[in-house]
Amino acid sequence: MIRVAIIGQGLVALHFEVGLERLKNNEIPDYGVPLREWLPYKYSDIEIVASYDVDESKVGKTVYELARRNYPGDSIPGSLKDIVVSRGIHLNSMKGLPFKARGREEDKGIDAALNELIDEWRNLNVDVLINVMTTEPVEAVGDPREIERRALHGDLTASQTYAYAATLYAAKYRPVTFVNAIPSPLANDPGFIKLCTERKCTILGDDGSTGATPFTADLLEHMYERNRKVIDIAQFNIGGNTDFLALNLPERNIMKKKTKSGIVEDILGYEAPNYIRPTGYLEPLGDKKFVAMIVEYYSFGEFKDEFYILMRINDSPALAGLLVDLARIGRIALDRQAYGTIYEVNAFYMKRPGPHGSRAVSKYHAFQKLLNWLGISDPRHKA
Amino acid sequence: MIRVAIIGQGLVALHFEVGLERLKNNEIPDYGVPLREWLPYKYSDIEIVASYDVDESKVGKTVYELARRNYPGDSIPGSLKDIVVSRGIHLNSMKGLPFKARGREEDKGIDAALNELIDEWRNLNVDVLINVMTTEPVEAVGDPREIERRALHGDLTASQTYAYAATLYAAKYRPVTFVNAIPSPLANDPGFIKLCTERKCTILGDDGSTGATPFTADLLEHMYERNRKVIDIAQFNIGGNTDFLALNLPERNIMKKKTKSGIVEDILGYEAPNYIRPTGYLEPLGDKKFVAMIVEYYSFGEFKDEFYILMRINDSPALAGLLVDLARIGRIALDRQAYGTIYEVNAFYMKRPGPHGSRAVSKYHAFQKLLNWLGISDPRHKA
Amino acid sequence: MIRVAIIGQGLVALHFEVGLERLKNNEIPDYGVPLREWLPYKYSDIEIVASYDVDESKVGKTVYELARRNYPGDSIPGSLKDIVVSRGIHLNSMKGLPFKARGREEDKGIDAALNELIDEWRNLNVDVLINVMTTEPVEAVGDPREIERRALHGDLTASQTYAYAATLYAAKYRPVTFVNAIPSPLANDPGFIKLCTERKCTILGDDGSTGATPFTADLLEHMYERNRKVIDIAQFNIGGNTDFLALNLPERNIMKKKTKSGIVEDILGYEAPNYIRPTGYLEPLGDKKFVAMIVEYYSFGEFKDEFYILMRINDSPALAGLLVDLARIGRIALDRQAYGTIYEVNAFYMKRPGPHGSRAVSKYHAFQKLLNWLGISDPRHKA
Amino acid sequence: MIRVAIIGQGLVALHFEVGLERLKNNEIPDYGVPLREWLPYKYSDIEIVASYDVDESKVGKTVYELARRNYPGDSIPGSLKDIVVSRGIHLNSMKGLPFKARGREEDKGIDAALNELIDEWRNLNVDVLINVMTTEPVEAVGDPREIERRALHGDLTASQTYAYAATLYAAKYRPVTFVNAIPSPLANDPGFIKLCTERKCTILGDDGSTGATPFTADLLEHMYERNRKVIDIAQFNIGGNTDFLALNLPERNIMKKKTKSGIVEDILGYEAPNYIRPTGYLEPLGDKKFVAMIVEYYSFGEFKDEFYILMRINDSPALAGLLVDLARIGRIALDRQAYGTIYEVNAFYMKRPGPHGSRAVSKYHAFQKLLNWLGISDPRHKA
Ligand SMILES: NC(=O)c1ccc[n+]([C@@H]2O[C@H](COP(=O)([O-])OP(=O)(O)OC[C@H]3O[C@@H](n4cnc5c(N)ncnc54)[C@H](O)[C@@H]3O)[C@@H](O)[C@H]2O)c1
Ligand SMILES: NC(=O)c1ccc[n+]([C@@H]2O[C@H](COP(=O)([O-])OP(=O)(O)OC[C@H]3O[C@@H](n4cnc5c(N)ncnc54)[C@H](O)[C@@H]3O)[C@@H](O)[C@H]2O)c1
Ligand SMILES: NC(=O)c1ccc[n+]([C@@H]2O[C@H](COP(=O)([O-])OP(=O)(O)OC[C@H]3O[C@@H](n4cnc5c(N)ncnc54)[C@H](O)[C@@H]3O)[C@@H](O)[C@H]2O)c1
Ligand SMILES: NC(=O)c1ccc[n+]([C@@H]2O[C@H](COP(=O)([O-])OP(=O)(O)OC[C@H]3O[C@@H](n4cnc5c(N)ncnc54)[C@H](O)[C@@H]3O)[C@@H](O)[C@H]2O)c1
Ligand SMILES: [Mg+2]
Ligand SMILES: [Mg+2]
Ligand SMILES: [Mg+2]
Ligand SMILES: [Mg+2]
Repeated sequence: MIRVAIIGQGLVALHFEVGLERLKNNEIPDYGVPLREWLPYKYSDIEIVASYDVDESKVGKTVYELARRNYPGDSIPGSLKDIVVSRGIHLNSMKGLPFKARGREEDKGIDAALNELIDEWRNLNVDVLINVMTTEPVEAVGDPREIERRALHGDLTASQTYAYAATLYAAKYRPVTFVNAIPSPLANDPGFIKLCTERKCTILGDDGSTGATPFTADLLEHMYERNRKVIDIAQFNIGGNTDFLALNLPERNIMKKKTKSGIVEDILGYEAPNYIRPTGYLEPLGDKKFVAMIVEYYSFGEFKDEFYILMRINDSPALAGLLVDLARIGRIALDRQAYGTIYEVNAFYMKRPGPHGSRAVSKYHAFQKLLNWLGISDPRHKA
Repeated sequence: MIRVAIIGQGLVALHFEVGLERLKNNEIPDYGVPLREWLPYKYSDIEIVASYDVDESKVGKTVYELARRNYPGDSIPGSLKDIVVSRGIHLNSMKGLPFKARGREEDKGIDAALNELIDEWRNLNVDVLINVMTTEPVEAVGDPREIERRALHGDLTASQTYAYAATLYAAKYRPVTFVNAIPSPLANDPGFIKLCTERKCTILGDDGSTGATPFTADLLEHMYERNRKVIDIAQFNIGGNTDFLALNLPERNIMKKKTKSGIVEDILGYEAPNYIRPTGYLEPLGDKKFVAMIVEYYSFGEFKDEFYILMRINDSPALAGLLVDLARIGRIALDRQAYGTIYEVNAFYMKRPGPHGSRAVSKYHAFQKLLNWLGISDPRHKA
Repeated sequence: MIRVAIIGQGLVALHFEVGLERLKNNEIPDYGVPLREWLPYKYSDIEIVASYDVDESKVGKTVYELARRNYPGDSIPGSLKDIVVSRGIHLNSMKGLPFKARGREEDKGIDAALNELIDEWRNLNVDVLINVMTTEPVEAVGDPREIERRALHGDLTASQTYAYAATLYAAKYRPVTFVNAIPSPLANDPGFIKLCTERKCTILGDDGSTGATPFTADLLEHMYERNRKVIDIAQFNIGGNTDFLALNLPERNIMKKKTKSGIVEDILGYEAPNYIRPTGYLEPLGDKKFVAMIVEYYSFGEFKDEFYILMRINDSPALAGLLVDLARIGRIALDRQAYGTIYEVNAFYMKRPGPHGSRAVSKYHAFQKLLNWLGISDPRHKA
Repeated sequence: MIRVAIIGQGLVALHFEVGLERLKNNEIPDYGVPLREWLPYKYSDIEIVASYDVDESKVGKTVYELARRNYPGDSIPGSLKDIVVSRGIHLNSMKGLPFKARGREEDKGIDAALNELIDEWRNLNVDVLINVMTTEPVEAVGDPREIERRALHGDLTASQTYAYAATLYAAKYRPVTFVNAIPSPLANDPGFIKLCTERKCTILGDDGSTGATPFTADLLEHMYERNRKVIDIAQFNIGGNTDFLALNLPERNIMKKKTKSGIVEDILGYEAPNYIRPTGYLEPLGDKKFVAMIVEYYSFGEFKDEFYILMRINDSPALAGLLVDLARIGRIALDRQAYGTIYEVNAFYMKRPGPHGSRAVSKYHAFQKLLNWLGISDPRHKA
């Protein structure tokens, strides 16, 4: 059994929850789950035991109710009636967004709020925490002691605070994996990794790798393996979900720019001028974002070629599918006592794989590293 | 030194010849040459000693003259004045095309023509033959004795006859590598591979892997590694060079369809409906072809995503860059006495890698196999 | 009241029937109906009184039953239970397609079949016949007497025979409009136009103008009005409905090529090399076809620009929307006794506007001509 | 003869100057000049007599020298040696950009600078001033007296000051047309139009209509004429010329957003959610910008269709071609004493056609209005 608690009951969480239940019920195939049934843990081993949010229109509702409102179609598993959204810690993470939010620290103070949280997790025997809350503007802290100091003063962001709570929980009750699917640098914060290693917890992160970014990584690998010289890359993203709404605020937009840079040079071996950015919010696009991309390169004889790539991607399902793996791998990490963070896992699933300073590799390479770490072999390559 | 003879003095040959000389002169960087300076043989080791064609407007001309006519720009190396185009064997390979062609077998019979050819190669000490003649309609023969029988009756196609000549040359004078960059099944013909193994020659083939096909292979790998279910793939190619002109004839078009099928299922593990085809000839596009592609797939939760890919690719330079590797690898094969064919080389460079019956893999996997076979390691992965 | 009979109970017919009933019920807005509520006839004036097909799986079924099977979603108006598909005239129009078909002439001969048909139309007081049957290979006849001669010997195609029946009906009972939404040259056959004029009937045609063709016409107008020199145009279409399946047969494909050529030169004033073609059938695309297009042109100073256009279009609804206008205009034509054919109507709604020899104009120009002919003014331009 | 002075010796000016001379020399066809040879004034009637800039690296150089540096290829007409770039008025228009700039007002004060300018123009008998300087952040003034007041205090922007100078020149010496090809609201400033009408000058503007904007206008017209309901439009522009560099500064970017809004609603008759913006600067793209666009709409039956449009456009030549018309029309306006501004001209050539408050129409409609105003008929429509 893998007991999972969700932080941020948004669209990604919803697609994870509905999809997982439907998977367990054999109502859908496991498309979009990279490691499918290759892992020792099965889909039915995953149980979602809690979900946290701060949006007043969500707290207190069941996931079933929220799915009725926001998930397309009618096939909402009844089992989602059992998950009631609890109030999380806010710390102003929703500032500037058109939603009414309130955190439990606002009444009782941060200290009491933290203690309540980890008590809840203990009662539920939580193994894996999955962070899919709204993108927040934040910098790495770097030092474990500084993290502790700030945590007590309410001077961390919401994600940092949840991750800090995870270390407390691990120290006090049982090891835990914190899957950080959002851009906040946690697996990339040496302070958090140190704290985790000390306290028997694991952070997988940062920022789930879906959409155009992993595809670009592999496209660059394709270029590298032909020794094509990339002249420039431009990439635009536009969508209509609340994630894009949040990213439209400049201070949050910068979080994505950060996670997306770096890969170009690491994979190609040289810096290629690029303009890679989530750009705009356009409400009627909904969750199905539009990506447009140009790549220009020199071929043999210095002739100039061009690739143009357009994508229409259901944004939230893409990450939700990865979470089905990450929940299971999170548990495997605990079984193996692999505390701190795990580059081999992050390299495939994350846009900005921790630990800080690791080199970006193509997702092709990362996939092989991942299978190796897991001790799995690709069935296509078996004799 | 690697002595190379070209078969088919068309646009690909021209880009190979001009590019190679400019590379040797340090006039251009080695973009588009996958193995760059990683091989024991250097660019300056390659010497083009002969070129064969049957087009009356080319036979007897120097490559320099042809480059003046057909290569963009003014930077034509003077050294190309030394290569005079010789008359090859025709066997009707240009049938239906608007060019006046004549083969040397038309005067003196196939037997004498073959003997002349291999005598010329002997005098030039040819190591590597590169076949880049016009795509011809042809089926594999299968049996070495049948090949010999048909060769003597002029019942093989031009490519088959050149390859047969290579086996004669190898048997009589010295080992040789025949690089088959066109769709004719030679490395995929068990008869030819058998004949080669017996006679100390190597065929690398078939059909140089450039353009949308290798990219599609890697795109499918990307899909596979995320367990996305590909719903359909459509891909169109249109160009304005004489290769597209030839492919526009239905009996030749089918040659490309053949080399392109199969990869989808081998990589994905299931058959995905596809329509992948070179389609049209549009003269003003010249050598810069246009490729349009759609890929639809199911993501997690059976949501449908779409990729649209457009490419503008300089067709001939792409293959010419690969030939810079293949000439060198052709020589390495001889050094290693690796006769017959070499899957590890074909898998990366060819659309339909021989030997017959081998499984298609993504180019990413093929690249690793290739480096392994060559005993090279990717400098990015060195400590 | 406008009494409409449908010929060819396929996907276009279905979208017309379902859409029209839903329009009348105010269940959907009138998107895709160019003349919306600007015409003297209202949507509720249109009544579909008959539908003909030869597919054994359709004849005898109600349109409601067929809609349940083939129309997406659940909102099928119950009123469609009243339309039962009758057996039409086959004359081998389904040859080569994977459907079991049988025409009423097969039992009783063509003469009796024709008489039955026009008697049915008389009983139903049919005003407008809409031809949306499968694309058939056919050439114009040219001479009215030859048409009569061939009709009696069953030597016309199915569409020609239906159109001939329309002239008989008009001569004997009452004027009728025959809307020819398929590529068969009827409005472009001087013989049919002559026959119609003699017998008080009107043919609007040929080949409904939807998808990429009208868009290309307007794009070319845009180029012309900037004096850009179009260098080349390539356009591919691929889809997964039975229309694409039929067009995949080479002799039918040629029908579309014909209707699409000509426009380039007429609009630009010079011939621009082009490759415009419906190309492929790919079943999972269903009715939502994929169009890819490139246009290259010279700008000021002979600099070369490029446009790339991709479309995903629901094929059948696009034509169905036009039919809502054409049924009403068909009736207006009769009110005005405008027999023969009407260029001003065809120029906007048809790919190959009759009469034969008329010049192609951009759809912008055609729209103005259409409004003029109808005596309507664009509300945006009113004071 | 039409004597033209250029304001802003950038890339657009260069393409206009080189192209015009080459046109006069019959070295290039007149592609990209919408009205070609249909106007009473010929290309050879246009003479460029002066050019102003404030960039220290340009002032004092001949246009020939600048063309050698910045115009592709070698065909620079020698006649351009006659045009020496004069120092213009700066007023801080280059603030924040990485160029060293200095205006003649910086030494001698605004008043003297203005007087010098109009004296120069008088000596050269200038008929038409063409403003193609760097996009500046600016708001309309509205009142002629306020304009005069601010002019004397150096409180107008550079463009406004040049336009003000034009009114002084017209009042004192001779009527003049000021072509405002940049986003600054001049033809849209009722104050400037009033001043012009009083003083016998004409402003054509604002913001030359090239690239994706006019194409979008006509695409929307195409949608309107089919009653398709546009759901959303997103459009990105990225380029590598100094215009994009300037537009990358947020306060300048807003100038383009302004000129591009409004057209959607005016043409469609309803507001469609849109995100239309010049977005990024990517140096290696140079003058050949990349535009990506998505348009989603409802077809008949509320089925959702999508268009994806990609463009590669040589940015500066596109505007330069229009200037060949605007110089000639500027002169025709003077011949006709059509002072103030001319909507019929602006509607076709400008993104934000003056006077303020005029309705956007499709370019197709605008072209007809333009021909009407000029008394020209489209040769395609002649009998
Ligand atoms: N493909 C993808 O969708 C993808 C990929 C990578 C990363 N991500 C990241 O995943 C996150 C979630 O995306 P989404 O589309 O579900 O967004 P969303 O806006 O639908 O959901 C975010 C939820 O987090 C809640 N929240 C905000 N602050 C909180 C707090 N302090 N405590 C608890 N809950 C809080 C919000 O109320 C909201 O319900 C985003 O940060 C996004 O950047 C998404
Ligand atoms: N990217 C690529 O361009 C690419 C990729 C894979 C394969 N290929 C294959 O490479 C080949 C060459 O392409 P290309 O663009 O240079 O074509 P091309 O038409 O420019 O050149 C082919 C040349 O072969 C000559 N030829 C024909 N029959 C001959 C014979 N019997 N003996 C000697 N010469 C003969 C022709 O006269 C012509 O000069 C084609 O078969 C093509 O399918 C090209
Ligand atoms: N946007 C568009 O869909 C579009 C645009 C222009 C023209 N068209 C034309 O409209 C026609 C219909 O398209 P569709 O998508 O509905 O095709 P479809 O294949 O779904 O339907 C055609 C129907 O015609 C029937 N039919 C064939 N022969 C017949 C005969 N002799 N008598 C009576 N019925 C007969 C078939 O059984 C079938 O039910 C095609 O010819 C197509 O080329 C369609
Ligand atoms: N297709 C197009 O290129 C297009 C279309 C519409 C509008 N425009 C507008 O045209 C203008 C010119 O574009 P460009 O590509 O040539 O840009 P550019 O940057 O190449 O040239 C602008 C020139 O103006 C000069 N300048 C700046 N301030 C000046 C001043 N106060 N007095 C005199 N000169 C001054 C600069 O030094 C520079 O040389 C821009 O405002 C652009 O927005 C261009
Ligand atoms: Mg998201
Ligand atoms: Mg080729
Ligand atoms: Mg159809
Ligand atoms: Mg510009």
